Amino acid sequence: MADGHTAVMDEGSKKAAEAALNPGIVFEMMQAVQKTAALKAAIDLDIFRPVGEGRGDVASIAEHANASERGIRILCDFMVINGLLTKEGNLYKHTPCSAAFLDPASPACLASVAQFLGNDAMREPLKNLAQVVRDGRTSLEGEGSVEPENPIWVQFAETMAPMMAPMAGPLAATVLGRHEGPMRVLDIAAGHGLFGIEVAKQNKQAHVTGLDWAPVLRVALKNAEKAGVQDRYDMLPGSAFEVDFGGPYDLVLLTNFLHHFDKPTCIDLLKKVHGALKPGGSAAMLEFVPNEDRVSPPMAAGFAMTMLTTTVAGDAYTFSELETMYHGAGFKDVKANPIPMSPHTIVTGCA
Amino acid sequence: MADGHTAVMDEGSKKAAEAALNPGIVFEMMQAVQKTAALKAAIDLDIFRPVGEGRGDVASIAEHANASERGIRILCDFMVINGLLTKEGNLYKHTPCSAAFLDPASPACLASVAQFLGNDAMREPLKNLAQVVRDGRTSLEGEGSVEPENPIWVQFAETMAPMMAPMAGPLAATVLGRHEGPMRVLDIAAGHGLFGIEVAKQNKQAHVTGLDWAPVLRVALKNAEKAGVQDRYDMLPGSAFEVDFGGPYDLVLLTNFLHHFDKPTCIDLLKKVHGALKPGGSAAMLEFVPNEDRVSPPMAAGFAMTMLTTTVAGDAYTFSELETMYHGAGFKDVKANPIPMSPHTIVTGCA
Repeated sequence: MADGHTAVMDEGSKKAAEAALNPGIVFEMMQAVQKTAALKAAIDLDIFRPVGEGRGDVASIAEHANASERGIRILCDFMVINGLLTKEGNLYKHTPCSAAFLDPASPACLASVAQFLGNDAMREPLKNLAQVVRDGRTSLEGEGSVEPENPIWVQFAETMAPMMAPMAGPLAATVLGRHEGPMRVLDIAAGHGLFGIEVAKQNKQAHVTGLDWAPVLRVALKNAEKAGVQDRYDMLPGSAFEVDFGGPYDLVLLTNFLHHFDKPTCIDLLKKVHGALKPGGSAAMLEFVPNEDRVSPPMAAGFAMTMLTTTVAGDAYTFSELETMYHGAGFKDVKANPIPMSPHTIVTGCA
Repeated sequence: MADGHTAVMDEGSKKAAEAALNPGIVFEMMQAVQKTAALKAAIDLDIFRPVGEGRGDVASIAEHANASERGIRILCDFMVINGLLTKEGNLYKHTPCSAAFLDPASPACLASVAQFLGNDAMREPLKNLAQVVRDGRTSLEGEGSVEPENPIWVQFAETMAPMMAPMAGPLAATVLGRHEGPMRVLDIAAGHGLFGIEVAKQNKQAHVTGLDWAPVLRVALKNAEKAGVQDRYDMLPGSAFEVDFGGPYDLVLLTNFLHHFDKPTCIDLLKKVHGALKPGGSAAMLEFVPNEDRVSPPMAAGFAMTMLTTTVAGDAYTFSELETMYHGAGFKDVKANPIPMSPHTIVTGCA
């Protein structure tokens, strides 16, 4: 028995060593571009809808998508290979993930994110990433993704809401733990507005001011109307670095914003935020926060690549970096609240 | 104890269910394009060389690459996240994989494959994959990747040899098991020529004829000279569908070729091969052969996507399909020999 057990372990070690030395990882990474294109195509062709309706054979999907059977078969097989469909005989069916997040019939469907995440203009720098690495900044013009009035933020507001929506509940619960009764909230870079809106939903006495470019705020206002909180939702159009915040506020939200800028810029902005807060008020960031090693967890750490390619000096900042920024702007009691099952962390600071 | 054990299992099941319902897979697939761009950039900037020389800090790599420290730090972290470097403190080191396959100092280095696998022209169809799926064929002009005299095959021959080289030994061993003494070998779509050359190396009485476009054969001839088998290496320039094969041959190799064409075309070609073989001679394909479910194993099955995007009617054919083609052309005794640690299978048939 003992010998048998040892033999099994040796076999396992051998397999691990072989796997470690398989050049397939190089091939796979060089082909990873296909995954992005395939998911975008699958969403554009609406293949997840007929699968959810039980019409998951190639002929039915092809008819629905007005597409060739060869193309649909290879595309659907590729989805199976990548865990976004299953296949039983010749019938494609949903995985739990594709049922929840890719079938348009699901309330949690986030297929629209492919529009923003697959935005060609934002990907332009990937075409010559070596040059971006040499230059140390985006090859996009001006300030890159945060160039004033960049229309991509309207697209962000319109299409990324389903991916951000699950974070709104935890964020509001975390920040409202610090506040009761009437309160004023400033939502900087409001985008779709969901975070401020959720605060207004959870606290009926909260009054929210959304700050973003005017065309973006129109999307936020629509969402505020849908949520029935438009009477407690004001708009402050413009740049967070230029407009007068007004106030004072009990709470300032900075969601998915600081990662676009360098540390001095972040500290300056946090000082401005600090100046707009009531004594005892607080700020809350929603950020991709990698561990101090900067290489884990994968999604939060990997977000730095998006910042390299689309901004001049942004980053996925670690908690210690964000804490230092907060302290540099006069905040204290900085705390991290990772949101389960998401790459995001809520980082709060007290004025 | 029993209760405790049950609790642990429940926790495990819960985690599995949560993992299954994490929308991160959608985000990851939409960002997969970054992986391809990052590996290409890392190779172009030659970052694996200083890492292998023990100069794995950001400043040293940046100096070697003539690049910014911000860019190098984010790029190297991204390599770590994707398993192609490790990080100890602030020092990047090789994984077994990057040491073997990406460090230019390694004899097994296959960094050059990024040139072919990252070829912009071949990726053009991915930009509008939905349309390719609708049409059921490549959006490249004419016959796509197999358009006559397509220059990409010179690039293939020049850059993909390191990835194909490990397959040459197993292929030659498999096919020579059937032949001894003097023999004539036709290597169709010879490319870099490594497969025919390896046969010539393992059998000193083998005489090989390489068939490919003339500019491609110049690469094969160089490799034959390097291997010292040029006296037993002839060139037959042209299209496999048009030139007279000559012969008769003891062995015909069809490596990475049939997947570009539809089944009738493959059968017609195999008939022509059959006609050029001596009685008792054999043919050997090297192919990406997925299981009959067409969705496993991942690399072989996923190769169908490359065929959808770059050919008119090619595919990653299953063993039963290849066997049917062989039988349709008069071959018998068809056998599959998967090559360990590779996505390739050798499929042989007897004339």
